[in-house]
Amino acid sequence: MDTFTIIGLVAATCTTISFVPQALRTIKTKHTKDLSLAMYSLFTIGIFLWFVYGILVKDLPLIIANGITLLFTSTILILKIKYK
Amino acid sequence: MDTFTIIGLVAATCTTISFVPQALRTIKTKHTKDLSLAMYSLFTIGIFLWFVYGILVKDLPLIIANGITLLFTSTILILKIKYK
Repeated sequence: MDTFTIIGLVAATCTTISFVPQALRTIKTKHTKDLSLAMYSLFTIGIFLWFVYGILVKDLPLIIANGITLLFTSTILILKIKYK
Repeated sequence: MDTFTIIGLVAATCTTISFVPQALRTIKTKHTKDLSLAMYSLFTIGIFLWFVYGILVKDLPLIIANGITLLFTSTILILKIKYK
């Protein structure tokens, strides 16, 4: 595996798993006041479209990374709507 | 432009601009308690690596989308560190 691919994989891992601590914090505290509803709405729609795009162009890394991210960001979005 | 490309562009636009309302909200309220420091640290590192990856593979959409996102997420990260 070349250096470029490794950098891309590390980048994808960071952006995908970054929403885990936010989801865990929000589940634990039930406080969502400082989270922007517009941000999580737009971001979740965007990640869903990336996921669809991945399926359309048959790109497995796009499908996997965005599928996992979608789980976490939609959880945060639901909590934001529930506890706002 | 085909449908697949349009879906990809809409996806990229949504995920890139989604951090604008969060940055504006945080600048305005100066409240960052509900934001996860681990999330913004990991996400900003990830977006920076995507930006570097874009430069390495000479992919202009990756460079532009991640360069813009990096501006917003690093702003939120700095505010989180400043006001935590």
